[in-house]
Amino acid sequence: MQELLIVTTGGTIDKVYFDDKSDFQVGAPQIGRILEELGVAFRFSVIPILRKDSLHLTDDDRELIRATIAAQPARHVLITHGTDSMVDTARALASIGDRTIVLTGALNPARFRGSDAEFNIGTAVGAVQSLPPGVYIAMNGRIWDPAAVRKNVVANRFEAVG
Amino acid sequence: MQELLIVTTGGTIDKVYFDDKSDFQVGAPQIGRILEELGVAFRFSVIPILRKDSLHLTDDDRELIRATIAAQPARHVLITHGTDSMVDTARALASIGDRTIVLTGALNPARFRGSDAEFNIGTAVGAVQSLPPGVYIAMNGRIWDPAAVRKNVVANRFEAVG
Amino acid sequence: MQELLIVTTGGTIDKVYFDDKSDFQVGAPQIGRILEELGVAFRFSVIPILRKDSLHLTDDDRELIRATIAAQPARHVLITHGTDSMVDTARALASIGDRTIVLTGALNPARFRGSDAEFNIGTAVGAVQSLPPGVYIAMNGRIWDPAAVRKNVVANRFEAVG
Amino acid sequence: MQELLIVTTGGTIDKVYFDDKSDFQVGAPQIGRILEELGVAFRFSVIPILRKDSLHLTDDDRELIRATIAAQPARHVLITHGTDSMVDTARALASIGDRTIVLTGALNPARFRGSDAEFNIGTAVGAVQSLPPGVYIAMNGRIWDPAAVRKNVVANRFEAVG
Repeated sequence: MQELLIVTTGGTIDKVYFDDKSDFQVGAPQIGRILEELGVAFRFSVIPILRKDSLHLTDDDRELIRATIAAQPARHVLITHGTDSMVDTARALASIGDRTIVLTGALNPARFRGSDAEFNIGTAVGAVQSLPPGVYIAMNGRIWDPAAVRKNVVANRFEAVG
Repeated sequence: MQELLIVTTGGTIDKVYFDDKSDFQVGAPQIGRILEELGVAFRFSVIPILRKDSLHLTDDDRELIRATIAAQPARHVLITHGTDSMVDTARALASIGDRTIVLTGALNPARFRGSDAEFNIGTAVGAVQSLPPGVYIAMNGRIWDPAAVRKNVVANRFEAVG
Repeated sequence: MQELLIVTTGGTIDKVYFDDKSDFQVGAPQIGRILEELGVAFRFSVIPILRKDSLHLTDDDRELIRATIAAQPARHVLITHGTDSMVDTARALASIGDRTIVLTGALNPARFRGSDAEFNIGTAVGAVQSLPPGVYIAMNGRIWDPAAVRKNVVANRFEAVG
Repeated sequence: MQELLIVTTGGTIDKVYFDDKSDFQVGAPQIGRILEELGVAFRFSVIPILRKDSLHLTDDDRELIRATIAAQPARHVLITHGTDSMVDTARALASIGDRTIVLTGALNPARFRGSDAEFNIGTAVGAVQSLPPGVYIAMNGRIWDPAAVRKNVVANRFEAVG
C-alpha cells in the first residue's frame, strides 16, 4: 500500500454534541486525528467531501463520492460513512474498478467512550491492504460483500442477507 | 455525612445516542453507576425522579423535585440536572431549609470521552459534605451561589452575574 | 477563591507506561492538562515540585513541600500526591496554618480508562473552596481529617481509623 | 470465516496497574471482553495459553503456542502477544501451514486511554479474514511479513527491515 486515500462523508462516526443547541450534529471528520494519534506506519491523505447524516445522502452526493475517488491515483481507498445508507453507496461505487475500496463508519460516535469507531477503522485498514480490487464494507468486525449485507436497524447491526 | 441522597432529573449528563433513531435522548441516570465504579466510601441512594432536557422542566416539575427532597430525612443532597435551567431550579429550592443541596450536571454527556461529568460530580461531592445548609451549584469547578450565577449559553459555561 | 495553588509531587495519578522499558514510571503532572481541558472557571498555577512514588518521599521532601507552600501567598492549595504516604505528608503540613490545603491523588493512573483521578480532583476542588483553613485529604469521595484516616493497602482504599 | 480462534499469551496489551504493589503486571486477557462489548458479528473462542511479558517467552513457550493452534481445527487464528518478541514467535509458527494466523498486541495497555489495542485488534480482525494462509503481524496499522519487519525499540514502533 503506497498511500491510503481516505474520503469522509459524515455519519454517526463524526457526530459531536453541542450543549448550547441541545443537539448532536455531524462534526469535523475524526479519522485523521485518530490515525495520527495512533502513529500508523503508512501515509494517508484525507478528503472531507461531505458532512451529512447518511439518510440525507442523494444520488448526486454518491456521484460526487465516485468522481472524487476516480480523480485520484490511489489504489487503496477508505470511506467513512453513515451506516443507514452505507450499503447503497457501496453498490453505487461498484463501477469504479481497479481499486480496493472499503467503507466503514460507527454505530456510536467516535467521541463516545466505548465507541466502535477505532475498532472499525482498524478493521477497514487491515482489510483494504489485504483484499483484491473491489468494494467492501467493514462493520461489526466483518468484511461484507455489499451485495449480501444489510443494516438491521432494529438490532442496530449489520447482518448477512438471504 | 451519614448518607448522600441523589435526585436525578435528566439533562445532558445522561444523554445517550441512538443510532437507529439518528438522535440523542436523555437516558438512564449515569451517576449511580459512576459512583459505584469509583468505589466511593460513603452510602448513597438514587431517586430518578425525572428524565428531561432541562429546557422542558415546568414549575410542576420543580415542585416535584422540592417535595421529593422534603420527604426524605437526608441532610446532604446532590441533584443532577440539565444546565439550561439549573439556576432556576436551584432558586426554587431555596425554601426547603436545613439541608445542604448541591446541583450539578454536565456540558458534555457522561458517555463522551473528555466529558466534564465525573469531575463535576466530584466537585459536588466534595462541596456537599463541606458546606453549611443552603443551595449551591457546582459547575466549571466552582461552587456558585444560585443568586449570583448564570449559564452563558454562547460561551457554554457558567459565569458570575453582575 | 482568588486563585488555586496546585503543588504536584508525583504518585500513581501521574504514572505513564513506557513500552520500551516495559515499565510504569511517574510522568509529567496530569492535573494542569485535565483542568485546562475541562475549562474550569478559576485561575490556578501549578508548581511541579517533586516526581516520586510516595513510598520514596523523605522528611526532606516533606519539608520542601511545606516550604514551597509557605512561600506562596495563596490561601487555597491543592496537592497531588501518591496514596501510600499521603497521610504522613498531610500531618507534616499541619503547622502551616491560615490556608485551606487539600491533598488528593489516584488509585489508578489518570491515563487509565476508569481512573479515579478526575473525580478525585473534582472532590478536592469542591472541598478546597468550601472548607475553613486546615489540612484535609480527598480520596474515595470523602473529605478526611488526616488524624483519623489511613490507607488500607490490601483493600486499596482509604478508611476511617479507630 | 467460520469461527475465529484467539490465543492470548500476555504482553503490554493486557497489562494492568496494581496500586497496592506500585506495579503493573500482565493481567487477564482483554480481547474477549473488547470483542463482546463491540458486538462483533462472528463467533470466536479464546484460549488464554500464557500470561507473560514477551521478553520472557522461551522456545518451550513458542512450541506450546504452536501445538495449541495445531490441535484446533480453526482456519483463522488471532494471537495477542507482547511486542518485544512478536516477530520471533511469528517466525516460529511458519511451519504450521494451512491457516491464516495474525499476531497483534499493543504499545500501550488496553486499559489506557488512547491505547492502540482496539485499533490493532481491528486491523488483525480485518486482515485475518482477508488474507490467504500464512503468518502475519498487524501493528501500527500495517500488515507485515514477519521476515521483513522488526520492532524499533527506541522509536517504539514497527518498521520494515532492509
